[in-house]
Amino acid sequence: MSDSRSDDRSVVYRLSPDCTSDAIEVGERYHARVNGVVEYGVFVDVSKHVSGLVHESDMPEDASYDVGDDLVVELAAVRDNGDLSFEPVAGDDFETVERSVQYDVAAVETLADRVGDTVHLEGEVAQVKQTGGPTIFRVRDETGIAPCTAFEEAGVRAYPEVDLEDVVHVTGEVETREGSVQVEIEDIDVLDDPAATDLRDRLAAAVAERAEPVETEPLVEWPALSGLRNDLREVARQLRKTVLESRPIRMRHHADGDGMCASVPVQLALEQFIDATHQDDDAKRHLLKRLPSKAPYYEMEDATRDLNFGLEDQARHGQKLPLLLMLDNGSTEEDTPAYEALDHYDIPILVVDHHHPDPEAVDPFVDAHVNPYLHGEDYRITTGMMCVELARMISPELDGELDHVPAVAGLSDRSKADAMSDYLALARDAGYDEEFLHDISEALDYEAYMLRYDSGATLVNDVLNVGGDEERHRDLVPFLAEKAETAVDRQLDAAMPHVEHRTVANDANLYTIDVEEHAHRFQYPAPGKTTGEIHDEKVVETGEPVITIGVGPDFAVLRSDGVRLDIPQMVSDLNDELPGAGVSGGGHLVVGSIRFVPGMREQVLDALIEKMADAELDEELRSAPTR
Amino acid sequence: MSDSRSDDRSVVYRLSPDCTSDAIEVGERYHARVNGVVEYGVFVDVSKHVSGLVHESDMPEDASYDVGDDLVVELAAVRDNGDLSFEPVAGDDFETVERSVQYDVAAVETLADRVGDTVHLEGEVAQVKQTGGPTIFRVRDETGIAPCTAFEEAGVRAYPEVDLEDVVHVTGEVETREGSVQVEIEDIDVLDDPAATDLRDRLAAAVAERAEPVETEPLVEWPALSGLRNDLREVARQLRKTVLESRPIRMRHHADGDGMCASVPVQLALEQFIDATHQDDDAKRHLLKRLPSKAPYYEMEDATRDLNFGLEDQARHGQKLPLLLMLDNGSTEEDTPAYEALDHYDIPILVVDHHHPDPEAVDPFVDAHVNPYLHGEDYRITTGMMCVELARMISPELDGELDHVPAVAGLSDRSKADAMSDYLALARDAGYDEEFLHDISEALDYEAYMLRYDSGATLVNDVLNVGGDEERHRDLVPFLAEKAETAVDRQLDAAMPHVEHRTVANDANLYTIDVEEHAHRFQYPAPGKTTGEIHDEKVVETGEPVITIGVGPDFAVLRSDGVRLDIPQMVSDLNDELPGAGVSGGGHLVVGSIRFVPGMREQVLDALIEKMADAELDEELRSAPTR
Amino acid sequence: MSDSRSDDRSVVYRLSPDCTSDAIEVGERYHARVNGVVEYGVFVDVSKHVSGLVHESDMPEDASYDVGDDLVVELAAVRDNGDLSFEPVAGDDFETVERSVQYDVAAVETLADRVGDTVHLEGEVAQVKQTGGPTIFRVRDETGIAPCTAFEEAGVRAYPEVDLEDVVHVTGEVETREGSVQVEIEDIDVLDDPAATDLRDRLAAAVAERAEPVETEPLVEWPALSGLRNDLREVARQLRKTVLESRPIRMRHHADGDGMCASVPVQLALEQFIDATHQDDDAKRHLLKRLPSKAPYYEMEDATRDLNFGLEDQARHGQKLPLLLMLDNGSTEEDTPAYEALDHYDIPILVVDHHHPDPEAVDPFVDAHVNPYLHGEDYRITTGMMCVELARMISPELDGELDHVPAVAGLSDRSKADAMSDYLALARDAGYDEEFLHDISEALDYEAYMLRYDSGATLVNDVLNVGGDEERHRDLVPFLAEKAETAVDRQLDAAMPHVEHRTVANDANLYTIDVEEHAHRFQYPAPGKTTGEIHDEKVVETGEPVITIGVGPDFAVLRSDGVRLDIPQMVSDLNDELPGAGVSGGGHLVVGSIRFVPGMREQVLDALIEKMADAELDEELRSAPTR
Repeated sequence: MSDSRSDDRSVVYRLSPDCTSDAIEVGERYHARVNGVVEYGVFVDVSKHVSGLVHESDMPEDASYDVGDDLVVELAAVRDNGDLSFEPVAGDDFETVERSVQYDVAAVETLADRVGDTVHLEGEVAQVKQTGGPTIFRVRDETGIAPCTAFEEAGVRAYPEVDLEDVVHVTGEVETREGSVQVEIEDIDVLDDPAATDLRDRLAAAVAERAEPVETEPLVEWPALSGLRNDLREVARQLRKTVLESRPIRMRHHADGDGMCASVPVQLALEQFIDATHQDDDAKRHLLKRLPSKAPYYEMEDATRDLNFGLEDQARHGQKLPLLLMLDNGSTEEDTPAYEALDHYDIPILVVDHHHPDPEAVDPFVDAHVNPYLHGEDYRITTGMMCVELARMISPELDGELDHVPAVAGLSDRSKADAMSDYLALARDAGYDEEFLHDISEALDYEAYMLRYDSGATLVNDVLNVGGDEERHRDLVPFLAEKAETAVDRQLDAAMPHVEHRTVANDANLYTIDVEEHAHRFQYPAPGKTTGEIHDEKVVETGEPVITIGVGPDFAVLRSDGVRLDIPQMVSDLNDELPGAGVSGGGHLVVGSIRFVPGMREQVLDALIEKMADAELDEELRSAPTR
Repeated sequence: MSDSRSDDRSVVYRLSPDCTSDAIEVGERYHARVNGVVEYGVFVDVSKHVSGLVHESDMPEDASYDVGDDLVVELAAVRDNGDLSFEPVAGDDFETVERSVQYDVAAVETLADRVGDTVHLEGEVAQVKQTGGPTIFRVRDETGIAPCTAFEEAGVRAYPEVDLEDVVHVTGEVETREGSVQVEIEDIDVLDDPAATDLRDRLAAAVAERAEPVETEPLVEWPALSGLRNDLREVARQLRKTVLESRPIRMRHHADGDGMCASVPVQLALEQFIDATHQDDDAKRHLLKRLPSKAPYYEMEDATRDLNFGLEDQARHGQKLPLLLMLDNGSTEEDTPAYEALDHYDIPILVVDHHHPDPEAVDPFVDAHVNPYLHGEDYRITTGMMCVELARMISPELDGELDHVPAVAGLSDRSKADAMSDYLALARDAGYDEEFLHDISEALDYEAYMLRYDSGATLVNDVLNVGGDEERHRDLVPFLAEKAETAVDRQLDAAMPHVEHRTVANDANLYTIDVEEHAHRFQYPAPGKTTGEIHDEKVVETGEPVITIGVGPDFAVLRSDGVRLDIPQMVSDLNDELPGAGVSGGGHLVVGSIRFVPGMREQVLDALIEKMADAELDEELRSAPTR
Repeated sequence: MSDSRSDDRSVVYRLSPDCTSDAIEVGERYHARVNGVVEYGVFVDVSKHVSGLVHESDMPEDASYDVGDDLVVELAAVRDNGDLSFEPVAGDDFETVERSVQYDVAAVETLADRVGDTVHLEGEVAQVKQTGGPTIFRVRDETGIAPCTAFEEAGVRAYPEVDLEDVVHVTGEVETREGSVQVEIEDIDVLDDPAATDLRDRLAAAVAERAEPVETEPLVEWPALSGLRNDLREVARQLRKTVLESRPIRMRHHADGDGMCASVPVQLALEQFIDATHQDDDAKRHLLKRLPSKAPYYEMEDATRDLNFGLEDQARHGQKLPLLLMLDNGSTEEDTPAYEALDHYDIPILVVDHHHPDPEAVDPFVDAHVNPYLHGEDYRITTGMMCVELARMISPELDGELDHVPAVAGLSDRSKADAMSDYLALARDAGYDEEFLHDISEALDYEAYMLRYDSGATLVNDVLNVGGDEERHRDLVPFLAEKAETAVDRQLDAAMPHVEHRTVANDANLYTIDVEEHAHRFQYPAPGKTTGEIHDEKVVETGEPVITIGVGPDFAVLRSDGVRLDIPQMVSDLNDELPGAGVSGGGHLVVGSIRFVPGMREQVLDALIEKMADAELDEELRSAPTR
């Protein structure tokens, strides 16, 4: 007992129910209640755990007690066998003092020094995992997470009343198991208010403090990006908080160069932060998953699969449902049905994207939405540029590691941002000339295709040289870039002779090519990039405004240069004009792709070309990014 | 020894071979056999483990023994070093009493109370798993399954003579490991007859008793279904038996609404029963796998994959090969090649289906075949309706949990069963109005599409509210139903303008639509459902007999209303008439789909339509189920 | 100390730095260096671990020592507390003798007998695996591999300075864990030269010795194959070495009959060798993976995936990158881009193939290339025939197990090798008649299709009866062969009526068939085999030279009989003549397949047929193998 004892005989202690015999002392007085009447006296409780006898001989002659009666007693003696002897105290002029057990609550971070001790822990249940043997509760306090094990019966859930995300008090012995510290639970209680609220507040405060992003200086001075830094800090804060709360993160990103420049640094930053905050070496595998998206938006199939995985992990490993982090994807109306599906579960969503956003559709479903258009900027700030800053706000260990990445991102998306020259200079200082940066961008594209929907972690790390091997990087990039170039040449050899040209009403050059008939199927580059390459050649060749359409059986890829298109508007108009054509699509304003019903292909293309022929020419719109 | 000893000197014991020195006593007499002749006497065996010397000095003068001679001896003394001294007994007027070792065979269910004891177990080897360290034998007796470990050398198979499914006697010490009880094997012997047969009989009897299905009352009184109850009880019995024998179950089901209403309750029931009968929390993951089928029948590819998985699990985890449970699939001739493939391995097959069956083809390969047609009923008894009853016969914990499921199954398959009103009433009492039930059915369909061939356990549980979360269910179903409806509308917008109409010879309205040309490819709903939705609109629109054909490059989906088609017959006729068209197909009588060689598409369609034009109209055939 | 001590007072020992007090003895003399000067004397070091005092009273009057001074001392006394007392020795006429610690280095294979002892191990770090608890170093010496565990902090990498493939000295206690022997590391040091080089040499020598292939006699006497035996022995040596060095092997093989006859025996041989050389029962799962290839060559996608898996295993399990073993694939120029990609990583490549090779393209990237063409032989020596010999060189346990396999391989590839009759006789002696061998070949083909890109280990083992179950084999093969035949008949029923015939300039019969239009799509047999079956029928039907072309939208399968085609040359010519057609292809000289851009299909076919019409007829070229 750590409280000081009073000698004042007028003091009567009221013991809290969990007090043990450690909380009493001969000569002290306690509030007691009769719990049994026997021939030779009455038994009284002074707490849940402390009882004793008031012998008949010590009672007043006329005394008569019934079970449930309250009285005041003084502890007269503790017998050798531990039995307690109380004497009744007359009168009612007492000062009552509450006495509760003063736990010495241990911080998780100190457990390693207390192996063999019985300790008290207080925290939130971050995971409940039933093994074939014991049940494992992972309990998180302000300083860390400790596995606490309880055994009821082999494979049987112990303490079924204790749920994920409850706040609890654990009593148990600290032991080591295969080198890890764990607590063998003697008792675990769900805390009630006010203790519960108090603890939750403390945990939240501790998390909030530790979630505070790293203070960074931007890699380059760039007013356009500065306006987004607060938004990025908020995303960094939420991601760090998510890690600290042991909630898994599922990262979905656009499967192209900019998407990888965005996702790989954030992945590395989160892995570093997980390593720094979780004892378990496997934590980063459980808590973070990076997945390229199949489509240029978040498809319902992907969301269904993500949800399904999350629910299975919850059921099988007692994990929280994940947070979804969308990178270089996620800002458009096409993403919202999938978001809405996740909204029915407890799955927060964060978006960092530079595609033309539809905040009205998206914002009701997401917890953060960072997009340059929301700050009056545009796609020239690529997602990779933003995410390099984001990664640096998440982990302090990245300084100097990412200097080349914004330039790669910019080249990948052909960004004409003012800051490109600064980024190129920064990359140059880090040992990357522009040609090599361009090679990285091509190599990323090529690997993205080869890996399909596998994240290809280690390999991509080498290609981008973020968390990879520098020597391999220098070796691998030129090789892959050359393979990519050869493959592009092969595709162009097949396609170029079949590209059709016409000059349309607004004097733009219109090129069309059937990318399924006149290109190698299922080979790199895919129709989108093949169209882009043709387009780029034609832009250089003509030096005039160019529109290029790569047509497939139920899709068309659109590229334009020097023409003011509004693809979202065209999609909407085509839908009105051609009922039954089922036109949909997306991308940037002047560059994107549309889908339609195969049987309406000719009608859709005719109508589309008519619209394009009417579009205004605009010198400013040259060399826009590819989606 | 627990038997009482006789003082009657005329008694001679015949010891069973496994008796040890515990089974003998000085002064008792035993049948013995000479196993060695030495200068100073002969050595005799009284059991495999008990031998001793008959000293020359104790023999009759003229005695002469050879190895193999039988005699009767009395135990004269046990020396300090354990050596036994026997004396020969003359005469032949003995009463022979058999004495065998009286093991105190421990029941598996009592092991937890005997930690530290050396015990005897008898049972069947249900699994042999070689780990990097010891070999683990899982031994099953009448009361449960115990892991028994033996260590020969790291990673080396101990007791290679003991195989899966042998019956064995184990001697070993009970210990706990990570909270689980296990037996460290001192000795394990394969039992010979008669002990082996006796034990197998006892195990079989115990399994038979525990496999007896739960006594249930049907959810609604329905004579048509009552006829099937005995068949379903037999399936329930076999499934419970399969669980008790630790044989894995692989469940394949039709990937549609009725298929899920059939499979999800049976899955839950089996999981509950596994939990109740297996200590290991992971058992349900090892013993049960639910998989939607790709095709409307059991394809050879699926069977090959199932077999391959089963063989790998056998090789790697020492598991038995699985039992195959086919639900809402499996009754047709098209399933038989796959069944025949499994027949070459020890894989029992159970079928519960309501598609038009071909018992002659199917029954030779299956252990049970439940189908309403086999009882003079038809597809109106959906598989979901049957399987809800089946699930309740498997697990007693399901009461009240499944009241809404038969109605969903009926709506999914548009059943016109008389009992539909009772099922709808039952669901209404459980809080489900018809519109909501219909929404569940649409939501299931939508999720089945989104999940492709993933079982999507937890998510589907929520959608159907079987083993799921009620709150989420109420929240999720309207959302998914609405998404499904939007997607259907989008598909119909594209398709409807291109539906072609003609009136054929029998006055039916024939509608045809190219579902690849005039629908969104690879998007929900797939061609089958798209055709169905068009058909339903046309039925309502015309109020007359309608046939709808959704045509693809190598398939056609057929829907009819008010026309007496016989699709299996048409397929057979088309095959005769159009050699080289490769027509195949299946489904219900009046609703189904056919496949053909792409180059013969026009000829097949022409011939098909001709046949349909000849079909009889029939007022009774309205609103048939979709496959 | 095991070295003998000298009494010669002129001897002065120079102790190696790692000597402990075990290496010294009172009365001996040592080279020492002053490490501290105090009031009462100087402290000297005689090794890193051994220091002591030279007391002032024992020094010459005029002596004056500074830190760093060298002197010779004699050990005068060892005090009770272990302190050492040295006396300086005057003079310089000494014989210096080096004394180093004589570890009793334990061999891994002896550890099981030394549980509880502290031992020294020396070897190469074959794997570094970080668990949630300790770090596990798997240390390989000349006799085996031992897991050595070190605990720094839960989940934290211990001894981060020790890397994969370092050679190390481990001191630690031998213990058993779940029956496996392991060493709990007290200290682990990376060895420096010369000790490192010495150890590496010893390990290499030991590996080289153990890697020496099994001495075998060929299954049949066949001069053509004899020329390849040395090459095969070299591959066997490298594979055994790879296993001994714990490097994983990734086996890619052609997904057809010959490919399986090649890969399954080698897989079994390697598994047996792994079992014989690795304690861990799981080793074969970690060290060997067999994968059928999607394409008839090693695609960049496959290489990317293989690389990605290898890198992930390296990152997660600390494994070495794999060796790639190409079987019945890998000899052609089309394989080289993928090889080049792997070349950027430390991934050795071995090739055994019988397709027309391009050694100039291939050999720069591979460590071994076995191909009959490189020895003046041709495709008639199938890869299966070669690999049966290879397997027998890897594992001595295979004798008699593979006698039927070369015949199956030969029949699968329709080999007209002289040795076929010997192989058929060998198989007959093993109980296989020709019809049954043919059935095996058809069954393999069928299973290869059904399994797609799954290796289907156990199932294929049964079909081929290599490491499978004989009884099942006998049962399964006729069943699968019959299913395959039925499926072929069904495909031919659809295709045959649509086969077009013409007689071309060289008088050969040319048959063409659209294999996508007039065959069942996505069903067995695939276009290649369907074309082959049509071809075979036409060869028999006409008895004349036949060319058959199975055409798809962007490919054509070519079969010829009695016509001297040179497919690689035709591909090259077509590419020159038809820019934009993107013709590519491969296979054997007279049998193969080409790919092209769909929009150029007619032009390509016309040009192709023209070339074929010009080809020379050649009686010798009948019944060539199918690719």
